[in-house]
Amino acid sequence: MPVFSSVEKETEIPYGDMANALRALAMDAVEQARSGHPGMPMGMADAATVLFSRFMKIDPSKPDWADRDRFVLSAGHGSMLLYAINHLLGYADMGTDQLKRFRQLGSTTAGHPEYGHTLGVETTTGPLGQGLTTAVGMALAERMMNARFGDELVDHFTYVIAGDGCLMEGISHEAIDLAGHLLLGKLIVLWDDNGISIDGATSLSTSTDQLGRFEAAGWDVRRVNGHDHDALIDAIARARNTRRPSLIACRTTIGFGAPNKAGTETVHGAPLGAAEIEGAREHLNWPHAPFEIPTGVRTAWRKIAERGLLAREAWEYRFAFAEQREGFEAALAGRLPAVLSEKMADYKHALAAEAPKVATRKASEMALAVINEATELTIGGSADLTHSNLTITRGMMPIAACRYAGRYVHYGVREHAMAAAMNGIALHGGFIPYGGTFLVFSDYARGGIRLSALMGQRVVYVLTHDSIGLGEDGPTHQPIEHLAMLRATPNLNVFRPADAIETAEAWEIALSSERTPSVLALSRQNLPTFRTGDVRENQTAKGAYVVREPETHRDVTLLATGSEVEIALDAAGRLATEGVAAAVVSMPCWELFERQDESYRGGVLGEVPRIGVEAAARFGWDRWTGEHGRFIGMAGFGASAPAADLYDRFGITSDAVAHAARDLLNRA
Amino acid sequence: MPVFSSVEKETEIPYGDMANALRALAMDAVEQARSGHPGMPMGMADAATVLFSRFMKIDPSKPDWADRDRFVLSAGHGSMLLYAINHLLGYADMGTDQLKRFRQLGSTTAGHPEYGHTLGVETTTGPLGQGLTTAVGMALAERMMNARFGDELVDHFTYVIAGDGCLMEGISHEAIDLAGHLLLGKLIVLWDDNGISIDGATSLSTSTDQLGRFEAAGWDVRRVNGHDHDALIDAIARARNTRRPSLIACRTTIGFGAPNKAGTETVHGAPLGAAEIEGAREHLNWPHAPFEIPTGVRTAWRKIAERGLLAREAWEYRFAFAEQREGFEAALAGRLPAVLSEKMADYKHALAAEAPKVATRKASEMALAVINEATELTIGGSADLTHSNLTITRGMMPIAACRYAGRYVHYGVREHAMAAAMNGIALHGGFIPYGGTFLVFSDYARGGIRLSALMGQRVVYVLTHDSIGLGEDGPTHQPIEHLAMLRATPNLNVFRPADAIETAEAWEIALSSERTPSVLALSRQNLPTFRTGDVRENQTAKGAYVVREPETHRDVTLLATGSEVEIALDAAGRLATEGVAAAVVSMPCWELFERQDESYRGGVLGEVPRIGVEAAARFGWDRWTGEHGRFIGMAGFGASAPAADLYDRFGITSDAVAHAARDLLNRA
Repeated sequence: MPVFSSVEKETEIPYGDMANALRALAMDAVEQARSGHPGMPMGMADAATVLFSRFMKIDPSKPDWADRDRFVLSAGHGSMLLYAINHLLGYADMGTDQLKRFRQLGSTTAGHPEYGHTLGVETTTGPLGQGLTTAVGMALAERMMNARFGDELVDHFTYVIAGDGCLMEGISHEAIDLAGHLLLGKLIVLWDDNGISIDGATSLSTSTDQLGRFEAAGWDVRRVNGHDHDALIDAIARARNTRRPSLIACRTTIGFGAPNKAGTETVHGAPLGAAEIEGAREHLNWPHAPFEIPTGVRTAWRKIAERGLLAREAWEYRFAFAEQREGFEAALAGRLPAVLSEKMADYKHALAAEAPKVATRKASEMALAVINEATELTIGGSADLTHSNLTITRGMMPIAACRYAGRYVHYGVREHAMAAAMNGIALHGGFIPYGGTFLVFSDYARGGIRLSALMGQRVVYVLTHDSIGLGEDGPTHQPIEHLAMLRATPNLNVFRPADAIETAEAWEIALSSERTPSVLALSRQNLPTFRTGDVRENQTAKGAYVVREPETHRDVTLLATGSEVEIALDAAGRLATEGVAAAVVSMPCWELFERQDESYRGGVLGEVPRIGVEAAARFGWDRWTGEHGRFIGMAGFGASAPAADLYDRFGITSDAVAHAARDLLNRA
Repeated sequence: MPVFSSVEKETEIPYGDMANALRALAMDAVEQARSGHPGMPMGMADAATVLFSRFMKIDPSKPDWADRDRFVLSAGHGSMLLYAINHLLGYADMGTDQLKRFRQLGSTTAGHPEYGHTLGVETTTGPLGQGLTTAVGMALAERMMNARFGDELVDHFTYVIAGDGCLMEGISHEAIDLAGHLLLGKLIVLWDDNGISIDGATSLSTSTDQLGRFEAAGWDVRRVNGHDHDALIDAIARARNTRRPSLIACRTTIGFGAPNKAGTETVHGAPLGAAEIEGAREHLNWPHAPFEIPTGVRTAWRKIAERGLLAREAWEYRFAFAEQREGFEAALAGRLPAVLSEKMADYKHALAAEAPKVATRKASEMALAVINEATELTIGGSADLTHSNLTITRGMMPIAACRYAGRYVHYGVREHAMAAAMNGIALHGGFIPYGGTFLVFSDYARGGIRLSALMGQRVVYVLTHDSIGLGEDGPTHQPIEHLAMLRATPNLNVFRPADAIETAEAWEIALSSERTPSVLALSRQNLPTFRTGDVRENQTAKGAYVVREPETHRDVTLLATGSEVEIALDAAGRLATEGVAAAVVSMPCWELFERQDESYRGGVLGEVPRIGVEAAARFGWDRWTGEHGRFIGMAGFGASAPAADLYDRFGITSDAVAHAARDLLNRA
């Protein structure tokens, strides 16, 4: 049964008119902008009207109310559907002025929905399939929060509108496989089954039986006429009552209402044009001027907002008396307990005393043991490389279907879904997700990682096996250009710690970076702990710092990251015996170093010739070595052999560094 | 029915013994290397034995025979299966010495199979799902070649062994959807259905009914006991006789034969250990020493090679009398007709005279019109953005199920499959594939693009909408870090042409780069043609060149690419009126510029302050601007607005360039 009674009956405004309001606003806004996508909003207007008027539990006056239903427009190009809905519901930032400024600089009506930019946008969508997969993360987070705080505080649905493109993208497979496996029954996907993609009929490129496909992944499936309101109500009501995630194939006509263009690809991504719009107004019996909404229709939509407000107030009342109120608020705020920093300080102190020789992936596991014990905010996981990434710690129970109290997600061999689902978990609130794979497979997760950065989500990527140092698996598994790819990405902190202390520091920063995702690039091979003594100050937070300073003066600066700091230190030691004064700088995070003031940066780099050392591509290093500096690293792809042989083969050795230094100083 | 008679009957060596030889070699080689993956080879040894002994049409003495069946080990970690087979078949580079040097520097037995490094390896595999998808491209290429040259010359199967991981990866969805749609009946996938992935039982992370899933994608499916030779023979024989691509789920025990570890994740990726190997030898009744193969078993495997040789000779005989012999050879060699360079010269000459103001994506279409008319080698396509990427030219018929004579592939909204399938088409031979999407969606295709580069395949990526210049679609669609990501990738030429002439030149280089894939980053917006006059020399081939040189001296060099060359030229013009002598350099391909000699590079860059201008991330630019240079570009993500507003908003204007120049020269 629907959650809410019929707005249609109460206001005597037919759903068709409410839907036509969406259609008209979409076609008018696109026309005004002279760019945009009218086809999808016009096609899905009926389904959206039914969904919002009978089911959606949201309060536009408090868009971030924790127990709201989530609505994700995975087919993000149809953004005008969402903006039109939010306008009619009365979101504060979605006045007619904004609709008229669709796709203009500074408007809230960006080309694709952008999280953080516009109220009521739950996640940034546009790259197809991301919304669907992010929604899987949201639906999982809902169940996990429910497991912790109970039905009284957490009980909401995640609704998705997805298009043909979303379902063609590979990420959709990862998403539906994971959602089906985890029995995310409160995830409901409305598929805009309009048979049209940009190139033309979808029959140009696909013959898949989508219902069969989703069923094979353990979903509940049904098909409805996407313009039949009663059938839509019935389908959504039924979907809400299954234990399995649901797909509702809504058979629609793209551009519904456009007299000549409806049902063709011409309405997908271009304005209809004045004549066609006039025709549509006639066809839909919508005689109102552009952007004009009759009072009755507006009232009907506002009714939805009013009920949402009542629902929210009822929840607030329950919340006021809830036992777990404080814990719930702290979780939602993502506040780390004070004890964590104390425990981390103790841990680093002990590390510095012990100075273990461990791989940084192992050091990450050791840091995580401290972190995961001190806070329950963290949710771990791996794309089927748990015991290589070392992402699980003692006592972490796996999350499984109907066992949502766990803290570890077996994401399967699905790097892309892991990234997008982590975005969804972070966006939902209540958790800090981290997930592991090999650094090289950041390739497979790129689409999701970029959205972590664009949305500014606190997501931590634990990317181990970070260079040719992984050895025998060979070039397909050895990252070369990946550090560059990640460092070039805006708003992403890329850490490549050199020892156990730096690894702990990187974790501290990653956890406290509330609006920036982090990558931890970690070694497979063991590395000595060189940071001993006083480790109270987080040096990694400066991005780069001097780890060895010659006594009197500098002849040369050796810049290195991660596993190559050891090599640079060794080279500096050799050079010292020859009277060459080499400083060594560890650069665990370029982004943070870039943010230091010029005098600090200058002091660290030194006004001397500089050599960069990193078992990766040179690309980007000239920023630090200068034009006349040198670089010791990889010039091409790796090879399959034991790690030590590879370092020799590719000339990433303290010998080579020392040689380059001599050469640079003309002391050969 | 099987193609070949029973080796078992002829030699009286049971298939079980032939399979045990593979098992023993795999476990011994992994043990010797102290690293590797014995589980998959031991589990799939029976299926592989049956496949090779009854069906595979290959000639180890001529591994690149055009009409051979293709075998793709998509689960590339099981490389020892392939090496053991190739050893027993007698491939010239696969002696016992190589098996003993499994995963060692310089051996042919790399950790994962590497194309070009080892005979009989059809494609590089390791990143899961790539092999399967590349095989779709091979199977499509087979049908396309068949459509051109007939059954007599082209009639072979593409066999794949895929693991659970391959089927979990999103790319597998794109692959099977495309293959099912195109009815690639000669593609047969043997799925190693062992229920184990690295983290443990696959039930930890998936509940998908794979047979149902493949069936929904239009595949023929069946399930067999993967250790039952008769059942396997029957299943493969049936699969060969369907019009649809086939999935055979081979229920196997991972590490079959290992007495204690078989059936568990412990045999997946680590040596078995001496005791377990001893136990396996007993269990399998294989009393032979490590790497020792009894003569009978060796003879049985050689029989397969002998028959393959006969099959190849029969083909050679047919080929000798084939009408289309020359055309076939030219296609396979990928030789471009001489007329192409003449036509391109004429086209560029006309362009220079006309100097049109067109988007470089449009210029690409214009160049393709010339190219596609002059040669039939090119196979176009797009990931559902045909009329945005402008990748189709007049008269190109689409390829569809059973209509393989076309030259255009509607890849659907599947960037990753497009990249991998293009690799497969290129590897198969006979074609030069190119495919389009937006530059930003190179994110989705990264895994495939990297393999194009690693394998050195002539694949051309037509990546349009190459900056904030695409305008209203906003930050999810605006590439920022993508040029850096692609430029950092070894063996990939990244072109960002500035006008129609450079675009034509980029196409010329891309087509003639037989061992390097190319990216063409192309503008959505119109750009003036500034290269007029004599355009006989391909300036783009130098990577960078001076497009404006001040008369007497240089004060500053403005370096730009693509759409920003126009801005740099405008800035130089303004500066000239102020008495500042600015040279302008267009840098359409950094990789090619890097390869020029130092004196050329120095002359182009000039020993003066330098400013880089590119509507993208700064990352990588310091290489050219030097430490004290400036960069005018993007410092973060883009926004949704008309292109001109965005260039203003982000300060990528000739004003900003001129200002930076003055500032740099202290002439503010």
